[in-house]
Amino acid sequence: MRLIAEDDLEDLARGAAVLGTGGGGNPYVGKLLARQAIREYGPVRLVDAAEVPDDALVVQSAMMGAPTVMVEKLPRGDEVVNALLALQDHLGRPVTHVVCGEAGGINSTIPFVAAARAGLPLIDADGMGRAFPELQMLVPGMFGASATPMVVADEKGNTVLLRTSGNRWTERLARAATIEMGCTALIALYAMNGRAVRDTMVLGTLSLCQELGHLIAQARAGHTDPVQAVTGRLNGHEVFRGRVADVERRTETGFARGRAAVAGLGPYSGSTLELNFQNEHLVAIRDGRVLASVPDLIIVLDSDSAEPITTEDIRYGFRVSVVAAPCDPRWRTEAGLALVGPRYFGYDFGYIPVEERLSAEGSRA
Amino acid sequence: MRLIAEDDLEDLARGAAVLGTGGGGNPYVGKLLARQAIREYGPVRLVDAAEVPDDALVVQSAMMGAPTVMVEKLPRGDEVVNALLALQDHLGRPVTHVVCGEAGGINSTIPFVAAARAGLPLIDADGMGRAFPELQMLVPGMFGASATPMVVADEKGNTVLLRTSGNRWTERLARAATIEMGCTALIALYAMNGRAVRDTMVLGTLSLCQELGHLIAQARAGHTDPVQAVTGRLNGHEVFRGRVADVERRTETGFARGRAAVAGLGPYSGSTLELNFQNEHLVAIRDGRVLASVPDLIIVLDSDSAEPITTEDIRYGFRVSVVAAPCDPRWRTEAGLALVGPRYFGYDFGYIPVEERLSAEGSRA
Repeated sequence: MRLIAEDDLEDLARGAAVLGTGGGGNPYVGKLLARQAIREYGPVRLVDAAEVPDDALVVQSAMMGAPTVMVEKLPRGDEVVNALLALQDHLGRPVTHVVCGEAGGINSTIPFVAAARAGLPLIDADGMGRAFPELQMLVPGMFGASATPMVVADEKGNTVLLRTSGNRWTERLARAATIEMGCTALIALYAMNGRAVRDTMVLGTLSLCQELGHLIAQARAGHTDPVQAVTGRLNGHEVFRGRVADVERRTETGFARGRAAVAGLGPYSGSTLELNFQNEHLVAIRDGRVLASVPDLIIVLDSDSAEPITTEDIRYGFRVSVVAAPCDPRWRTEAGLALVGPRYFGYDFGYIPVEERLSAEGSRA
Repeated sequence: MRLIAEDDLEDLARGAAVLGTGGGGNPYVGKLLARQAIREYGPVRLVDAAEVPDDALVVQSAMMGAPTVMVEKLPRGDEVVNALLALQDHLGRPVTHVVCGEAGGINSTIPFVAAARAGLPLIDADGMGRAFPELQMLVPGMFGASATPMVVADEKGNTVLLRTSGNRWTERLARAATIEMGCTALIALYAMNGRAVRDTMVLGTLSLCQELGHLIAQARAGHTDPVQAVTGRLNGHEVFRGRVADVERRTETGFARGRAAVAGLGPYSGSTLELNFQNEHLVAIRDGRVLASVPDLIIVLDSDSAEPITTEDIRYGFRVSVVAAPCDPRWRTEAGLALVGPRYFGYDFGYIPVEERLSAEGSRA
């Protein structure tokens, strides 16, 4: 167990936005929300999954909706804990731990708000090892974990408790409620015990976020390349560098959907990279050839500072480095790809691990 | 207390469709559902509001959605009682009575399914004295009754429990869930005690439905005018008679919306009546002049048989009589008109009681 105080949030939120692969919410907003909660309620106890008792009652706390709207419609704070308390009420026994559903600028920090306000420890783990746009897209789902009972709450005092016949239905009904609530809502879901956390979640995520943020800060201070620091830590590769030439973005069916085109610079001069996103980056295509796809991580960083750039923030003229990195190995199984492979997102090609795609590119060049 | 058996359903469902003012669901489908439940579980005890103990736990059971879809997507039956049981679960004490939310072909008969399957008595009352398209449109709402906690359930095993900051929010969130569930759902809502039923509901509705159905049957058998029998009992007036010349209908935002034009026959020859509906008939306009509007009842009957015609069934060539009748007097107050007056439905004119409109028409003629 260690305490997370205000000063730790800078690195943590930045690192979370790296793993957020463009989505998971704005890191600046996320940092502010967590900072305010910690200032008011004191530091949050971060515990390892190994420390969590088998019979713990662990609940995920998150924000649902379109990142484009999240930045304009901030949660007050009490609705975060309201969602958690409404779920606890329904479960009829006290929640003992909070955990993150995904890594991302807001969804790695909102759980700090819930933990601080409810006085609960936060587990160093998440459900994806990155961010994904839909709530059935969690590793525990592969092992039969149910997202429901789930609570969707808004700032107007409305709560919706869902019990469904499957996680896809949960996503549909929760998304409909979220849209009606104004395109953002606070959620509490995937109640599980300590053993399930250890067996099915991605462990150590928050420490990794903090470490990534720290590596970026260190590289900036030491005048080494912060983008290299990120790729090194994630066993990834910088696959493109250039200037954003075009962005198309719309808030549709409760998501930020769109594409961005990047015109190559330096070694990539003359090439164009196209990024497709649904909250998160789904596919990176260079000159018509797929370079990387979900579930691998496609990360867009400012070329100089390695500041992660979200899909709602990316705009014309930004100089960016695009990094691709391998996902949690469980996503690469048949069950994983059924949930988050490119075909699920409507693409007509199958998944090939990013390192294979890149070595094929290398031998082609 | 009296028992309602299979044989009583014919009159009851037909009379309910008269009060349904075009909506409230298809009376034939409603009759079949109630008949099947009574055949399987035995007759339903119909009790007067006066017989209900003050501390009773009364719950409304209804179907939500577009009538156009209801007729093609019949409930199996168990989801009706599932919604009720899920609400009971949440309330933590046994439901003692079922009651109707509105009068209408399905929503006066679905509560029989719930009552028969759950072995509970049904109260002879409803929340509107007619049908309205949205669930905040109940007389008890004027007196502060909350629709929540409310359950929305579907045939796939999904349930949504709503707790909201007001009945308008309940309508929005429940409608969004219903649309996602395929445009129809079963609901349980407006939990209240026996005293609240007596003080705020419209009493005697099911007896009135049965009486209306009986009067129509009697008139048909005795070769008297069944339309006159309806207008007489409801203190209403036949305001138009003609042939349906045009119907425009669409299923939109979970409602059946549209308009029908009726070309006058006999004394109305040369005139045209336009009906506007959102599940229920909202406004009747003759030759550009409003004849009747919500909250008064606008009822479309087959001219010969007085068979009530719903807005999803009305079509080209039907010979119809249009009847206008006064609503429950509480709807005519300021609070009532705020909920269901013509301005709420987007019209730019205020409410004038149908009897005043008609006497003005009379003096004009």
